Amino acid sequence: MAEEAAVRAQGEVVRRLKQDKADPDEIAKEVAKLLEMKAQLGADEGKHKFVLKTPKGTRDYSPKQMAIRERVFNAIITCFKRHGAEVIDTPVFELKETLTGKYGEDSKLIYDLKDQGGELLSLRYDLTVPFARYLAMNKIANIKRYHIAKDFDIAGQFDPMIPDAECLKIVHEILSDLQLGDFLIKVNDRRILDGMFAVCGVPDSKFRTICSSVDKLDKMPWEEVRSEMVGEKGLSPEAADRIGEYVQLHGGLDLIERLLQDAKLSQNKLAKEGLGDMKLLFEYLTLFGITGKISFDLSLARGLDYYTGVIFEAVLLQQENDHVEEPVSVGSVAGGGRYDGLVGMFDPKGRKVPCVGVSIGIERIFSILEQRVEASEEKIRTTETQVLVASAQKKLLEERLKLISELWDAGIKAEVLYKKNPKLLNQLQYCEDTGIPLVAIVGEQELKDGVVKLRVVATREEVNVRRENLVEEIRMRTRRP
Amino acid sequence: MAEEAAVRAQGEVVRRLKQDKADPDEIAKEVAKLLEMKAQLGADEGKHKFVLKTPKGTRDYSPKQMAIRERVFNAIITCFKRHGAEVIDTPVFELKETLTGKYGEDSKLIYDLKDQGGELLSLRYDLTVPFARYLAMNKIANIKRYHIAKDFDIAGQFDPMIPDAECLKIVHEILSDLQLGDFLIKVNDRRILDGMFAVCGVPDSKFRTICSSVDKLDKMPWEEVRSEMVGEKGLSPEAADRIGEYVQLHGGLDLIERLLQDAKLSQNKLAKEGLGDMKLLFEYLTLFGITGKISFDLSLARGLDYYTGVIFEAVLLQQENDHVEEPVSVGSVAGGGRYDGLVGMFDPKGRKVPCVGVSIGIERIFSILEQRVEASEEKIRTTETQVLVASAQKKLLEERLKLISELWDAGIKAEVLYKKNPKLLNQLQYCEDTGIPLVAIVGEQELKDGVVKLRVVATREEVNVRRENLVEEIRMRTRRP
Repeated sequence: MAEEAAVRAQGEVVRRLKQDKADPDEIAKEVAKLLEMKAQLGADEGKHKFVLKTPKGTRDYSPKQMAIRERVFNAIITCFKRHGAEVIDTPVFELKETLTGKYGEDSKLIYDLKDQGGELLSLRYDLTVPFARYLAMNKIANIKRYHIAKDFDIAGQFDPMIPDAECLKIVHEILSDLQLGDFLIKVNDRRILDGMFAVCGVPDSKFRTICSSVDKLDKMPWEEVRSEMVGEKGLSPEAADRIGEYVQLHGGLDLIERLLQDAKLSQNKLAKEGLGDMKLLFEYLTLFGITGKISFDLSLARGLDYYTGVIFEAVLLQQENDHVEEPVSVGSVAGGGRYDGLVGMFDPKGRKVPCVGVSIGIERIFSILEQRVEASEEKIRTTETQVLVASAQKKLLEERLKLISELWDAGIKAEVLYKKNPKLLNQLQYCEDTGIPLVAIVGEQELKDGVVKLRVVATREEVNVRRENLVEEIRMRTRRP
Repeated sequence: MAEEAAVRAQGEVVRRLKQDKADPDEIAKEVAKLLEMKAQLGADEGKHKFVLKTPKGTRDYSPKQMAIRERVFNAIITCFKRHGAEVIDTPVFELKETLTGKYGEDSKLIYDLKDQGGELLSLRYDLTVPFARYLAMNKIANIKRYHIAKDFDIAGQFDPMIPDAECLKIVHEILSDLQLGDFLIKVNDRRILDGMFAVCGVPDSKFRTICSSVDKLDKMPWEEVRSEMVGEKGLSPEAADRIGEYVQLHGGLDLIERLLQDAKLSQNKLAKEGLGDMKLLFEYLTLFGITGKISFDLSLARGLDYYTGVIFEAVLLQQENDHVEEPVSVGSVAGGGRYDGLVGMFDPKGRKVPCVGVSIGIERIFSILEQRVEASEEKIRTTETQVLVASAQKKLLEERLKLISELWDAGIKAEVLYKKNPKLLNQLQYCEDTGIPLVAIVGEQELKDGVVKLRVVATREEVNVRRENLVEEIRMRTRRP
């Protein structure tokens, strides 16, 4: 660097002056110059090195992004509460052994932490395994709960398919509320899959790994999945082809009835049980009036090992009249299923607690909505302020503070500009910019008359409101529909 | 272990039979026995090793605990929104260098992570430094925001003490809303402290470290703090004694006026500036009507390096008539102050953004409320369910599901027992246990008449409501006061 060379040259100047026993004032002047150059260099170095950023793989959320997230969370939590769920929370880390052996081939995606004080820890991979650990640890046999605004589960020994149907109703309600566009909820059952594998000639020991392959059908064509089954996983080509026929099937009650008559499947105990329950499930879904968006789909497998019964996954359907310019490729936005064996894996005595649950893909949903908002140029309010307390003349800061304090104490969401003498125009502009609907204006005359001038930003209409009626007037005018 | 010895003995049996070329069936029988014993041993070993627990230093939150947390969060967020704040979020980790050099002696409490892919990371220590990093990174000069329901800050160049007064109003509102008991908000100013240090004879270079010592006065007696100043930090005993006189002082406007006349302090530029602003702050707090709970306290220092002006801290006062059996020793439940230099430390050109903020001690507040609830045996509802859909006779599951689906779709929070034929008594008991206030009962006769029997759990009153009026009736009867 040029600066470093300059510092070295200046050092040489000083060295020579000292050597020559030059005038001390002269030396002092050059030393001061050297020090300043060095300080400058150090400061520059500091600036060069420090990078202003967040760690890799993390991001900030701006007020606008948080406003969109809040909408999503509100819709989801409102739905969970409507269905009577309690809420729990568990740590971000779990003991590594808590997570080991629960996910199957997805296990390799678990993020391990370095040893911290003698415990092997991993970041949680989902909320289902921590929930099962929580149930076993606290010996809970019955609970309906949600977890960080995304996972909802019903645990307990109940009559078949009633909680399962409620989980599907919940997915339907949330996706409808969020207005993400048209969607489809695919449903299948692990017992039907296992029965299908058996009658197709898959050895028992390969059920889970072949299930993982089937799970890839939403991202890969059948030919690739087939070659994974035969090539990598050693399945016979005949068995793979038989599977290939089944996984093309999807439909409703009619398909269930047809498979109940299927010569091979109907002979398999697991498949028969699964199909019987699927029929019952569809009866309940009919009562809920949501079968229009449900498809019984034999290609749906879900990758995780812990599912034991009904499984489901919701996907968004691409719309033709989409306002988004670049259509987002979205996979599943919700999924879940029944996992009756997981809690027993944690219980010292192996006591089982049957569970069924649903997980909402909030990050995906959030990305879709964020992109849509960007494209539509919709104005998103990032505050809920009902009124700005303003003044038209100078020297009224104290009156503004007195009035806003009254409003805050009455529960009104109110702001004031932090200036002693702001211009009225700036105050009105602030409302335009941030979407505040009302301005309460105090002035000498209004104070004398015991009124406040209330201005509606959108229409510029102004009315004098008696001070004692102001809170009620603001409430009335900002009530949500 | 005895089991291990047994397995070894059985292994010997098998080995000898094979050696003796015994009957294959005989061998197979003993091998099977050996395998079973080994499997049993393995399973037992697994049980012995696996500990069902959360990682050290972490905890689960039960529905009851989460219900209390939700109350706290609601009160805080409602207040932040009432004051017009936006919300942002930042990652849990920051680059280590983002946090370095911002906290002073508290820096040693920062938790560093192991190197992950070439970046040195640390867990965030507070939300203030990440907020300052966010402002510098996004070149934001004006914002009022909150952050994970606990930190509220106002950033921007404004007229003096108006945002500072609003922060104190916010602390006052939140602590009043939460009904934590009597509290006091101590206020001071870093400029007054620095001026005081100067006139007491503390060298400039020791201002921050002596400030850290003064900060310990809420936990240690003056004598100990004094000996730290003199012994560890090398302050002259005379300077320490002069500080000792000032830090005893606390009061209101009268004290501010007295210090403005103080022969030494009034000569110090910083102290004079700080006292002038403190006077202005008290004028605004008077307009807000909250000076009754505010104390100007010269012993308040706040440990963190980044404060530059007003600082404050709220403490709970022990009540005499406390219902809690073991009184909890609580320190501060909220704190904050002005930090005008922090954003500039991140900006490449050193551009300053003045900020003032408040942080609510939610974990402490939550512990206090949790302990109080435990002591009072207050029944905490963990759901918001308005109505249970029940039936008095058998074979009405379908009718219950149809009705509850209607209620859900109308936005009513409703539950149903997941049994085909639950007893009415069990359904009523469920409401008693979980606090559900209403039961909607369907029966043959009601179905014929087009009505639903609505029962008020608390009074056992029952009325027949026409089906089309049911939603409105439930809403009316469960409206919050």
